[in-house]
Amino acid sequence: MPVYNFAVGNPDPGSFPSEGLSRATQAVLARDGEKLVVYPDQRGHAPLREIGAARFVKNNGVEMPIENMALTTGSMQAISLCCQAFLNPGDTIITEEFTYSGSINCFRKYGVTMAGIPVDGEGMRVDALEETLKDLSRKGTLPKFLYTIATNQNPTGTMMPASRREKVLALTQSYGIPVLDDDCYADLLFGVDAPTSFYALDPESVIYIGSFSKILGPGLRLGFFAAKEETLQKVLYWKIDGGTNNLAAFIAAEYLKGALWEHIEDINAIVKGKLDAVTQQLDAHTNAFVSHSNPQGGLFIWVKLPDDVDPNRLLELANDRGVRYGTGKAFDSQGRDLTYLRLAYAWASHDDIVKGIPLLAECVADARTLALEAR
Amino acid sequence: MPVYNFAVGNPDPGSFPSEGLSRATQAVLARDGEKLVVYPDQRGHAPLREIGAARFVKNNGVEMPIENMALTTGSMQAISLCCQAFLNPGDTIITEEFTYSGSINCFRKYGVTMAGIPVDGEGMRVDALEETLKDLSRKGTLPKFLYTIATNQNPTGTMMPASRREKVLALTQSYGIPVLDDDCYADLLFGVDAPTSFYALDPESVIYIGSFSKILGPGLRLGFFAAKEETLQKVLYWKIDGGTNNLAAFIAAEYLKGALWEHIEDINAIVKGKLDAVTQQLDAHTNAFVSHSNPQGGLFIWVKLPDDVDPNRLLELANDRGVRYGTGKAFDSQGRDLTYLRLAYAWASHDDIVKGIPLLAECVADARTLALEAR
Repeated sequence: MPVYNFAVGNPDPGSFPSEGLSRATQAVLARDGEKLVVYPDQRGHAPLREIGAARFVKNNGVEMPIENMALTTGSMQAISLCCQAFLNPGDTIITEEFTYSGSINCFRKYGVTMAGIPVDGEGMRVDALEETLKDLSRKGTLPKFLYTIATNQNPTGTMMPASRREKVLALTQSYGIPVLDDDCYADLLFGVDAPTSFYALDPESVIYIGSFSKILGPGLRLGFFAAKEETLQKVLYWKIDGGTNNLAAFIAAEYLKGALWEHIEDINAIVKGKLDAVTQQLDAHTNAFVSHSNPQGGLFIWVKLPDDVDPNRLLELANDRGVRYGTGKAFDSQGRDLTYLRLAYAWASHDDIVKGIPLLAECVADARTLALEAR
Repeated sequence: MPVYNFAVGNPDPGSFPSEGLSRATQAVLARDGEKLVVYPDQRGHAPLREIGAARFVKNNGVEMPIENMALTTGSMQAISLCCQAFLNPGDTIITEEFTYSGSINCFRKYGVTMAGIPVDGEGMRVDALEETLKDLSRKGTLPKFLYTIATNQNPTGTMMPASRREKVLALTQSYGIPVLDDDCYADLLFGVDAPTSFYALDPESVIYIGSFSKILGPGLRLGFFAAKEETLQKVLYWKIDGGTNNLAAFIAAEYLKGALWEHIEDINAIVKGKLDAVTQQLDAHTNAFVSHSNPQGGLFIWVKLPDDVDPNRLLELANDRGVRYGTGKAFDSQGRDLTYLRLAYAWASHDDIVKGIPLLAECVADARTLALEAR
């Protein structure tokens, strides 16, 4: 049975630069191979931090000093280190109501309560955030941080506008709450610029989290975070792994120093083409897919299903027919069954999209309880 | 000023297989490059686990099933994950009295008390271990685990004989204490076999920790641990990093599948030659170096200084003259000033050894308080 995989946030496999990385490896090992017999710098290979900083400057117009950056095993390690540094069981944190399943699982392991702020087409709602902060404050609870994916939000595929970012930040600042600015989809933009990141607005109270997984591949496990020195040290204190992989960092830095902008342009064109194909299919099956977000970048689109769909039945049906997607429940901060699903569109081929989405529409139809009752 | 670096446990830089890794990269990226756009298996790249298992079988004569293994960011991440899984602040663990500084720092961060068991030329003393276990038991304290480097111990360069391993294990088993068997120097053997590892003796109560850093380089950040399923899952629960670097694992596995045994033989010959050169220098300066261990493998030799040496003064003098070494204090589980030092012998060149060790002897002479007073 063919499998149509819209579940995983992987880049397009055809755009993986195997040849470029191969050439980069030859060059960097011939020149710097012996440097791999020593332990990595605690903050990671400086040339790769420089590339992360260059991306940041281009997107935000302000500098990111590389001494304020540390490489990590993907952005996920940065998130978990922040949990270790900031959280105790029983603490409260603030997130978007729907957010990245990997982060949710991590937060749960650290035993905290997620106050999930309702979202709309522009991300976290400021009125709801303000109310939640007041509520928590009345109960004497100060959230330990606010975690947000403002650019190309996962799973909802929304972009928080500049004005809203400023309002969110004004609120966190007034309560003295740090912000975890998960910007790992920053490079995946389809002909638009992203608004200035939280970290660029306030490097004092914001921890920036970046990734090279989305422009190269998650198999390279390279991400980073940036913060003021005191915060950086507080987080790095728990990074007890002897340093982030220098072989991978050497190779990625060598490749990206020549190819960064061109490679980003190439993959964005490819991924945008796939998003268009997915959107076309969704719009052709509005009985099953009631509405969807309109991503301006990133890897994910958030799809509303009819209210009478049984999400668990849908999952079974889709699994049986080889269609994989992200359940709403996996991305809900409160772990509820939802009549939403997340489609990842970069990994699947155009052929998979054309065949898989209509198949998913059939599954949705078959998972409607009213429809079943009517039979 | 020239620097003579005997401080770091790095392999010999000349033996780093840059060309072999370069060729391996070309082969593996051409064949499997696209696999790097997906997340690594939670237990890591299977072919590299197979190589770790093959080494284990050769050294121990029993199988290590690869499903019981998980790759980590060097062996250090395995140690810190075990701390996260097993320890709470205030707990007690058992270690060799002198042990790896990186592990000591990690244990301190997790807020535990180290009961350091006195060592002799064959590692942890069984009589002292038995007494400590009785003492702790009387106080109602059950240590959370026993951490040991039985083969080529760091820093003392000793090898625990088979009979002693069995006695240590009988004691931990009788108290129901897990063993962390840090075997990261297992491949560095100078014409001897290592006794059977703890894990081979009892895979139920022992967690095995291995490394590829010592035969390739710490820059590759590849290690692993092995344990029974229940324990493996308990430890992996805290590995929240999206998986161990697949680019590095692909390359290392591709290289080592053809070159493992030959490469180990090559580096052991080189490292043994350096140990001989260091030993020769130490024996030529017995006024400064009262005695030393006789490593049969590994990267470190443990040197006794005259009792009237001021270790802090010695560190200053040696730093001023460009000689780097490991202080006794850094490797003491109780953090005391010691009239011992650790020399790492694989990284420094023969020329460094011939010049640096006599220079260190001069520093030792100048750091003797009785000698100073006599002037």
